Amino acid sequence: MTETAAPRPAAYTPTDRTVPTRSRERAAYDHAMVHSILDEGYVCHLGFVRDGVPVVLPTLYGRVGERLYVHGSTGSRPLRMAGETDAGLPVCLTVTHVDGLVLARSAFHHSINYRSVMVHGVAHPVTDPDEKREALDALVDHVVPGRSYDSRPANAKELAATAVLRLDLDEVSAKLRTGGPNDEPEDLGLPHWTGVLPVRTSHGAPVPADDLAPGIEVPDYLTTL
Amino acid sequence: MTETAAPRPAAYTPTDRTVPTRSRERAAYDHAMVHSILDEGYVCHLGFVRDGVPVVLPTLYGRVGERLYVHGSTGSRPLRMAGETDAGLPVCLTVTHVDGLVLARSAFHHSINYRSVMVHGVAHPVTDPDEKREALDALVDHVVPGRSYDSRPANAKELAATAVLRLDLDEVSAKLRTGGPNDEPEDLGLPHWTGVLPVRTSHGAPVPADDLAPGIEVPDYLTTL
Repeated sequence: MTETAAPRPAAYTPTDRTVPTRSRERAAYDHAMVHSILDEGYVCHLGFVRDGVPVVLPTLYGRVGERLYVHGSTGSRPLRMAGETDAGLPVCLTVTHVDGLVLARSAFHHSINYRSVMVHGVAHPVTDPDEKREALDALVDHVVPGRSYDSRPANAKELAATAVLRLDLDEVSAKLRTGGPNDEPEDLGLPHWTGVLPVRTSHGAPVPADDLAPGIEVPDYLTTL
Repeated sequence: MTETAAPRPAAYTPTDRTVPTRSRERAAYDHAMVHSILDEGYVCHLGFVRDGVPVVLPTLYGRVGERLYVHGSTGSRPLRMAGETDAGLPVCLTVTHVDGLVLARSAFHHSINYRSVMVHGVAHPVTDPDEKREALDALVDHVVPGRSYDSRPANAKELAATAVLRLDLDEVSAKLRTGGPNDEPEDLGLPHWTGVLPVRTSHGAPVPADDLAPGIEVPDYLTTL
């Protein structure tokens, strides 16, 4: 018999935590959708519990296959907490993109078009040096694809000062709203403008550092970002 | 003696939770800075604890003076949980704006220019009808200033279906990074481009709803947004 890799499931299995209590039609679980939302961003909001109350920290993340990585100083709270026990740190990592402002005729039906991903799980410190290097490259390349090849890699001292947490993509859901407003039939005659104002993220012209040596041009991977 | 209002403190008092463990020079507590960051956004990430683990939910918010409001269906989890006991729901509400990508010569010194606000506290359901209406107007006007005057206000049925939570601005901090990369002296001769790529949020042209009646023009408050 020829050994073949098991086919990878095309979707994450919904759980009690990842099925919304309302607007279930907005939820999605397929890998392609989840990955595309994650790969479009680089800032997540990482939630964890400290002394019984929640903390939500904005931080960078990177994806390598079915793993997410976040990093920080070895002294920062979540990084330290995750390494204190073998059990790891229960977290919720959320990434959100705003695509448009939805203006309905009624205040009640105003909304936002958005795409978000919520990951529930337990974060563990990365101790393997190769995985740590791969994770740090992924973090840099998530912000600016290609940049990890065009910068000095971390040295031993920098690696030792940096903690990396891994969070497996397992209990995951995407949530999306698209399209125009959904007004009540009795409101259709009201005189208010109604529609969607698209929201876009773009980049300004690169601003060179004061001490950039003459002759070093802006790299292609920045102008095409 | 003439009674005068006590002068409002110009800054939030730092606490154990709002003093960062590192990069303390990036923290700010003055009202003006905190308000300006909050007022520039409308999507927050709301963290709460459910069954002992964290949940981070993207949701809209509005500010009225020293109070923040979030809203949702009366059936949604955090809204329901906040009303279950008089103690309210411990939350952490975080708002983040990304201003630029900071490309250093070393991977280690890559960073993000950002402004964020983190609010710790206990959220309580708003039961007073006047405060609830004011909060819902603030939520609409936070997304599109002036819009609450140009849409049908919520009726009794819609008000009953909407739950609003209040979170006082009390234990609050801002955190900011600005400026260029901070490379190590020994890296200054490396051949990599270094500087900042500005990140901007902008709006596309308004897209009218399919059923918008002819003759209703795009309002000024949208074109100037």
